[in-house]
Amino acid sequence: MRVRRRKGAKEHLESNPQYVILKPEEVKGHWQEVFGNDHPIHIEVGSGKGRFITGMAAKNPQINYIGIDIQVSVLSHALDKVLDSQLPNVKLMLADGSSLTHYFADSEVERLYLNFSDPWPKRRHEKRRLTYKSFLDTYKKILPEKGEIHFKTDNRGLFEYSLASFSQYGMILEQVWLDLHASDYENNVMTEYEEKFSQKGQVIYRVEARF
Amino acid sequence: MRVRRRKGAKEHLESNPQYVILKPEEVKGHWQEVFGNDHPIHIEVGSGKGRFITGMAAKNPQINYIGIDIQVSVLSHALDKVLDSQLPNVKLMLADGSSLTHYFADSEVERLYLNFSDPWPKRRHEKRRLTYKSFLDTYKKILPEKGEIHFKTDNRGLFEYSLASFSQYGMILEQVWLDLHASDYENNVMTEYEEKFSQKGQVIYRVEARF
Repeated sequence: MRVRRRKGAKEHLESNPQYVILKPEEVKGHWQEVFGNDHPIHIEVGSGKGRFITGMAAKNPQINYIGIDIQVSVLSHALDKVLDSQLPNVKLMLADGSSLTHYFADSEVERLYLNFSDPWPKRRHEKRRLTYKSFLDTYKKILPEKGEIHFKTDNRGLFEYSLASFSQYGMILEQVWLDLHASDYENNVMTEYEEKFSQKGQVIYRVEARF
Repeated sequence: MRVRRRKGAKEHLESNPQYVILKPEEVKGHWQEVFGNDHPIHIEVGSGKGRFITGMAAKNPQINYIGIDIQVSVLSHALDKVLDSQLPNVKLMLADGSSLTHYFADSEVERLYLNFSDPWPKRRHEKRRLTYKSFLDTYKKILPEKGEIHFKTDNRGLFEYSLASFSQYGMILEQVWLDLHASDYENNVMTEYEEKFSQKGQVIYRVEARF
């Protein structure tokens, strides 16, 4: 997700350490202490403006959520939502999807969400797609055996690519949705992007896959 | 595919033994003798009126094709196409997808096509879907190691089901198309059904999966 550069975004993040984990490398292996309980941890890689992660946290108080984004301005918008919600079970951090093993110990994360990731449609950019095998290596380390990735997108090319990428990596597709909003799936929490594009008639694809 | 019962269909098949293999159990393990060469054998399970199998045979003279259908009347329409084409590399047979091991030896078939198979949408009919695990057991026996199934359909529910079924069986998805006719895939041979429904704007899904 690209957003306009937001003035004071960095300071905004830094002044809210109860929600933004500023030095996540220091809590590697100790995330349950950050939340103050032993509930499972679910993360969203590329959490954008944070509607999904706060929506999920509100719906599922027995799960701890961490929204992760690489862009300061984007994360500062997510922080606004988290501040509004005042939920105890959602935190944010600034990080790159490829560096997750610096911040999470082996099997420390129970589930990983990817929503509307950048499609990087050019073949030469394949390695940047968040479902490319090098990212799967990273996710596999921080997830438990049979840990799940839940992925949704409106981008046909990225979804085609990702199904094959998961499968060729040895992951199992548990369930596939080729038109999520036309299905009877009841637990969907929409992202900002999803609401906008599905209203324009765009089909939303979804998959639950496990290692 | 359902078609009107055709008078004389059985006799039509029986009077063309050069194209219709009437006792396929007798040629199990000897299909190359039927074709008179050692070219690989590709089969279509549920070949309907035969447009796909004859089109493929015309395009690929170095491959031997066998169209298989369970309905006499349907197969007799396919026979009309085969008779028109006069191709040496296409044969037909009357059989059920679950009985293929009676007619083909282990690894005797190089590739298997499924096109627009009956979706059997009701959950209680899952076992009848041609991508249900018991059918995959059968296909696996007659295909070689890493043998491929190429499957296309316009039915969203069947495609969602089949991707998960292949994956959960341990098959690998080599490539997935979520809108075949909008893609740059060049080797498509349309079925009668595919032409009709894609003209109505129906999306065609396709997958190449291997054991």
